[in-house]
Amino acid sequence: MKRKDLLGLKEISKEEIALVLDTAAQMKKIILSGNKKSDSFSGKSMATLFYENSTRTKSSFEMACNYTGGTFSSLNVATSSVNKGESLADTARTLDAFGTDVLVIRHSVSGAPHLIAPLVKASVINAGDGTNEHPTQALLDMFTIREKYGKLNGLTVALIGDIKFSRVARSNIWGLSKCGAKIKIFGPGTLLPAGIAEIEGVTVCNSLKEAVTNADTVMALRLQQERMTSGLLPSLSEFSHFYGVDEEALSLAKKGALLMHPGPVNRNVELKDSALNSPQNVIDKQVTNGVAIRMALLSLLVQRK
Amino acid sequence: MKRKDLLGLKEISKEEIALVLDTAAQMKKIILSGNKKSDSFSGKSMATLFYENSTRTKSSFEMACNYTGGTFSSLNVATSSVNKGESLADTARTLDAFGTDVLVIRHSVSGAPHLIAPLVKASVINAGDGTNEHPTQALLDMFTIREKYGKLNGLTVALIGDIKFSRVARSNIWGLSKCGAKIKIFGPGTLLPAGIAEIEGVTVCNSLKEAVTNADTVMALRLQQERMTSGLLPSLSEFSHFYGVDEEALSLAKKGALLMHPGPVNRNVELKDSALNSPQNVIDKQVTNGVAIRMALLSLLVQRK
Amino acid sequence: MKRKDLLGLKEISKEEIALVLDTAAQMKKIILSGNKKSDSFSGKSMATLFYENSTRTKSSFEMACNYTGGTFSSLNVATSSVNKGESLADTARTLDAFGTDVLVIRHSVSGAPHLIAPLVKASVINAGDGTNEHPTQALLDMFTIREKYGKLNGLTVALIGDIKFSRVARSNIWGLSKCGAKIKIFGPGTLLPAGIAEIEGVTVCNSLKEAVTNADTVMALRLQQERMTSGLLPSLSEFSHFYGVDEEALSLAKKGALLMHPGPVNRNVELKDSALNSPQNVIDKQVTNGVAIRMALLSLLVQRK
Repeated sequence: MKRKDLLGLKEISKEEIALVLDTAAQMKKIILSGNKKSDSFSGKSMATLFYENSTRTKSSFEMACNYTGGTFSSLNVATSSVNKGESLADTARTLDAFGTDVLVIRHSVSGAPHLIAPLVKASVINAGDGTNEHPTQALLDMFTIREKYGKLNGLTVALIGDIKFSRVARSNIWGLSKCGAKIKIFGPGTLLPAGIAEIEGVTVCNSLKEAVTNADTVMALRLQQERMTSGLLPSLSEFSHFYGVDEEALSLAKKGALLMHPGPVNRNVELKDSALNSPQNVIDKQVTNGVAIRMALLSLLVQRK
Repeated sequence: MKRKDLLGLKEISKEEIALVLDTAAQMKKIILSGNKKSDSFSGKSMATLFYENSTRTKSSFEMACNYTGGTFSSLNVATSSVNKGESLADTARTLDAFGTDVLVIRHSVSGAPHLIAPLVKASVINAGDGTNEHPTQALLDMFTIREKYGKLNGLTVALIGDIKFSRVARSNIWGLSKCGAKIKIFGPGTLLPAGIAEIEGVTVCNSLKEAVTNADTVMALRLQQERMTSGLLPSLSEFSHFYGVDEEALSLAKKGALLMHPGPVNRNVELKDSALNSPQNVIDKQVTNGVAIRMALLSLLVQRK
Repeated sequence: MKRKDLLGLKEISKEEIALVLDTAAQMKKIILSGNKKSDSFSGKSMATLFYENSTRTKSSFEMACNYTGGTFSSLNVATSSVNKGESLADTARTLDAFGTDVLVIRHSVSGAPHLIAPLVKASVINAGDGTNEHPTQALLDMFTIREKYGKLNGLTVALIGDIKFSRVARSNIWGLSKCGAKIKIFGPGTLLPAGIAEIEGVTVCNSLKEAVTNADTVMALRLQQERMTSGLLPSLSEFSHFYGVDEEALSLAKKGALLMHPGPVNRNVELKDSALNSPQNVIDKQVTNGVAIRMALLSLLVQRK
């Protein structure tokens, strides 16, 4: 991998995606082996800089760093000098000067990691920026789908729910379409981004039924709390009624189709219990695959040096 | 050790307790050796999930993980996605899917770790659940007593103070009575649990003097702040007068008897300065032994696999 | 190094300072090498106990511990049992009993680490105490200057800004004067400590121009937020006008003189953009050198044992 940073799937090539997924397949064997001690990131260091709270993503990166033999320091920004009025750029430059090899940034402003990347020697991984991209999540989603079908080309993925404000959706759309998958989209009109229908491979649907029918994967997106109370939705129960995926909707997809969600799930909002209880639910597998993807990225980004 | 989880001392056998204490004796040598690098948890990972604040217990587990060669990720729940409304079960399942070998849980609800254990592949260690159990604390207490006397059978341990709401007391009662120790209890009537007198080996006393006389160990329990202001106690000074252990009370115990407390001490409430200053005070030793117990548990629980 | 603790530069000898700086020069090579894995702190453990927030210093110690092969546990005091009313001494003794080799303390009360040091077996490093000292910052400053000039003796360092409440200034004054450097001081009269002019090697100046002219290093000090609003300063813009270092002031110093700041900078308050943009700005280098200094101290303090 020759690139310095992973900022989004918009700018990455199909070949680079394949390299990350292939490497992650090796990494997953380490996670499952019982001896999670490898050395592809040994002698290297990671710093996490999360301006938004996250259980999953931050811990997933820490575990990935541990399993590849690296070390890390995690900045809790809520209690950090950022309180002292330090700018994002100054904080990132400080972490860079510590000898950090990979800087993992999550920020509520779209484009924040792109601003930082040229300022630092460290590789920057975007762990979610505003409503723009969350590339490691999309890579783990693509890994999970490819693990099942052996390919992405020619598959159909249904994305359901809040597309407009979902960085997960955005990254998946870039990545999946690049790899030849078709994407069917369904969500409230207020939560669909303008111009989405013009992207190659994307079809906007008019009903849940239309979106999921014959899909190889049904991916529900997380509805953020702030969306629930912002006037963009009439009510939670109405959202759940029209956009919540249940067993019946899932049965319209191809036999054995994957049911995915980036987590954490709002139970009986995006996914109803009947769908969550299905053996087609691979949410836990997505979590494991997320560690594998991050192990792959840490390892690949430092090979460049 | 064949069990998957350590949820409490109620369900563990005398033989299993002996195995943990024997292993901890080996682990303590590593702590004191100056080279705290061993490999009984190497290639393994721990995740801590603390829903209640704790200086001692969380750091003690982290140090134990470090000293046995493992890696960890600690979830700060106060700033985590749990804010996003994620359930305990979902959070635990996520940590499990990271490839976590041992999941350490503290929760304010009694039984929370018991709820989680069957849902995850990881071994669950209960680091304190509500007013139910705190088994690693009781194991370190039992280790400290056995280290002094070479045995637990036939010894007398006086437990003083808030028995009812103390998970430390509850775990000690289960563990000590199983190992043949006698337990004498003294505390305010409002802070004694119903039915305590029926447990084999337990005697409820009517005065501090009666409880401590001829005891091999005097263990004062922490009085939680919320108890002080809840109407269960007339006043702190009255509690201190009747239940606070001082040098005079300690002198009634056997010569050289241990003075213990799970920490942190409310000075001059549960223990008066005259007792704290005694050479019989082994509170710091309890802390060191706590790391040894946790090293032993991490090591033993992953041998099962 | 024979001393147990590093509490300040007031009590340390010139020879000890030289030993730390020489060791740090070796450590810096490790940071820059691409394989940040050494073993001078292997088998050892560090605990950080920060009662004041800090991005830089805490992460810098964690990275230093990682790079020298050690392990750590970091106590987040804001969410710790210290909430339970535990005293600093009790908390420190608990961390000590974990088998901690080096205890890193930051506290808002001057002298707090000095109070703790005799109570614990661990080496104590003062990471900033009130307005007293911040010795590791001064050591990294001295390292940065010596790296440029090959010596400290005979050099002139201009310290600009809030001297009175700056523990960085205080430690630099002790350390630099011991090593034969001359210190020129300029700041608001309300922010100059009484008796400062009597310290050997220190000259109080009457203008920025006087202070920086022919200096080998210009070091601006951070203006704390609380100073800005406390009535000690007429206004921020007036402070910036008289005490803010710009390109013009910097041009009065010796050719190629270093521009330094402990960070984080209040842009256009202590340092104006024209100065920050100068190639003489070595703030990022200071950050890297800080990791090297802390690696050196961790390594040296445990050699004693």
